[in-house]
Amino acid sequence: MAHDVFVLAGVLAFAMSGALQAVGRRMDVVGICSLGVVTAVGGGILRDLLIGAVPPAALTDWTLVPVALVGSLIVFWSHGRWTVPRRPMLVLDALGLGLFCVEGTVKALGFGLNPYASAVVGMLTGVGGGVIRDVLAGQIPSVFRHGSRLYVIPALAGGGITAALWSAGHFSLLALLAVAATVSAIRIASLRFRWRAASPRDLDLDVG
Amino acid sequence: MAHDVFVLAGVLAFAMSGALQAVGRRMDVVGICSLGVVTAVGGGILRDLLIGAVPPAALTDWTLVPVALVGSLIVFWSHGRWTVPRRPMLVLDALGLGLFCVEGTVKALGFGLNPYASAVVGMLTGVGGGVIRDVLAGQIPSVFRHGSRLYVIPALAGGGITAALWSAGHFSLLALLAVAATVSAIRIASLRFRWRAASPRDLDLDVG
Amino acid sequence: MAHDVFVLAGVLAFAMSGALQAVGRRMDVVGICSLGVVTAVGGGILRDLLIGAVPPAALTDWTLVPVALVGSLIVFWSHGRWTVPRRPMLVLDALGLGLFCVEGTVKALGFGLNPYASAVVGMLTGVGGGVIRDVLAGQIPSVFRHGSRLYVIPALAGGGITAALWSAGHFSLLALLAVAATVSAIRIASLRFRWRAASPRDLDLDVG
Repeated sequence: MAHDVFVLAGVLAFAMSGALQAVGRRMDVVGICSLGVVTAVGGGILRDLLIGAVPPAALTDWTLVPVALVGSLIVFWSHGRWTVPRRPMLVLDALGLGLFCVEGTVKALGFGLNPYASAVVGMLTGVGGGVIRDVLAGQIPSVFRHGSRLYVIPALAGGGITAALWSAGHFSLLALLAVAATVSAIRIASLRFRWRAASPRDLDLDVG
Repeated sequence: MAHDVFVLAGVLAFAMSGALQAVGRRMDVVGICSLGVVTAVGGGILRDLLIGAVPPAALTDWTLVPVALVGSLIVFWSHGRWTVPRRPMLVLDALGLGLFCVEGTVKALGFGLNPYASAVVGMLTGVGGGVIRDVLAGQIPSVFRHGSRLYVIPALAGGGITAALWSAGHFSLLALLAVAATVSAIRIASLRFRWRAASPRDLDLDVG
Repeated sequence: MAHDVFVLAGVLAFAMSGALQAVGRRMDVVGICSLGVVTAVGGGILRDLLIGAVPPAALTDWTLVPVALVGSLIVFWSHGRWTVPRRPMLVLDALGLGLFCVEGTVKALGFGLNPYASAVVGMLTGVGGGVIRDVLAGQIPSVFRHGSRLYVIPALAGGGITAALWSAGHFSLLALLAVAATVSAIRIASLRFRWRAASPRDLDLDVG
C-alpha cells in the first residue's frame, strides 16, 4: 500500500518531467500528455518487453497512465500561470528512480532472470523513461551528457544490491525500501554536491 | 477482402509519407526504403510486441513490406520528375489511420487484453509508425508539435469506440468500418478546417 | 569456439564505434559506455524481441555486455592520449556486420520464422545497433544518409543467402562463414571503392 503510493508519486514526478520538457519544446497538449505518459511508463514497458511480461503493466494496471495524465495536465495548465517548483520535482524524481530500479529488479527476478540480468533490467526500468523522453524531444539523453549529475550509476547500484540481497536470501520489504531510499539519497546528494561521472580528458579541462 | 485492400492502401500511403520525409532529409534509396517501410509497419510491430504476437505480422505476412517498398520506390523514382500530389496522400494517410487504429484494437482484444488496454494499443498502431519515422529523420514527432492538426485524438477515440462496441456486444464488420471511416473523416476535417489541440498559454498567443 | 571469438570481435568493434560517437557528442563516461553497449547488443536485442526469444541473449549471456564495456572504456581512456586507428576499426565493424546478419538469420530460422522473415531479422541484427546508436546521439542514422557506403544492402543479401541455403538444405558452418566473409568483403570493398546506393536525382547532381 505504502509501496503503491510511492510508485504513483514516482509516476507523477516522471510524468511532470516529461511534460515540462514537452512545453519547452513547443508541443501542444497532445505532445505534453504523450511525453508525460511515455516518461512515466516507458521504463516499465521496456522492462516488461525484455522479461516477456506482455501485455506490460502500463496497459494492464489502470492507475499508471491516468496518474501520468494528471501529472502532464498539471504542467499544461500551470504553464504561464505559476511555475512548477524545481526542487520538489527533483526530489520526487529521485524517489521514482530509487523505487523503479528496485521494483524492476524484483520483477525481473520473479520472472526467472539471473541476478546479473535482473540488475540491468532494474537500471533500465529507472532510466529508460527519461531516455525515451529526451529522444522524442529531439535531444541527446540528458543522463549521457558531459557534466550531468549521477543517475544511471545509482540506478545500476540499486539494481545490483537488490539482486545481491535476493541471492543471499536477505529479501524483506524493509531491505528493499532501504535500497531504494539509498539510491534516491545518492541522486539527491549528487545534485546538491554537483557530483558527476568522469568525462574524456579534454572535456574535463572545460569544467576544471 | 475489401478490408485487405484498404489496409494495403493505408500501408502504401504511410510508406510514401515516410519516403517523402526521407527525401527531404537527403537520404539515399536505402534510407528512403527503410523510412518508408518503418513508417508503414512500425505501428503494427509496436502493437504486436505489446500484445505478445511475435513474430509480428509485418514479418509473417508477405504482402506488407513489399507493398511498402513499392510506395517508397514510387517516391524515389518520381522525385525530380513529378511531384507526389499532396491531397490524395493526406486522404490515404487518413484512411490508413482510421483502419489501423480499429484493426489494432480488434487484434489486441483478440489477444485477451482488456478494452482500456486495447484502445491504447489501437491508437499506438495508428500513430506509432509516424512517430518512429520522425525520430529516425531527426525531428520531433509532428503529431506532438504546437499547431499540428488532430491525429492522436481521433485515433484514440476510434480505439475507444471499437473497444466499447466490443464490450457491448455490438461488433460487426460494418460497425468497425463505420468507426474507421469516422476517424478518417475527423482527421480530414481537422486538416480542412485547421482544427488543432490546445497548446500552453504563451504559445497560443503566437497563433491567436 | 572460433565463432565465439569472431562474435566477440564484432561486439568489441561495434562497442568502440558507439563509444567514439559518444565522445564526439561530448558525453561523459556513462554516455560512452551506454552508447557502446547499446551499439554492440542493440541489434541482437531487437532480433530477440521480434522472434520472441526473451529475455534476450544480451541479458542471459554474461560475456556480451562486459566485452562491450571493455571496448567502450578503451575508447574512453585512449581519448586525448592516442587515436583509435580508423582502418582496423572499420574492418572489425565489417566483420561484425557479416557475422551478426548470418547469426541473426540462423537464430530466427531456429525459432521457426519463415526464410523471408528470417532474412529481414538477420539484416536488422546487423544494422540495428548502429541505427539506435545514431538516434541516441541525436543524428540521422548514417546508413540512411546520401553518399553513405553500402551497409544495409550487404546485410540483407547475407541474410537472404543464409535463408536460401537453409531452404535448400545446404547448411554447414563452413557455408555460413563463407556468407559472413562475403558480406564483410562487400562492405570493405564498398568503403575502398566508394560504392554507394542511388540517391534521388537532384542529390546525385551534387556528388556527380
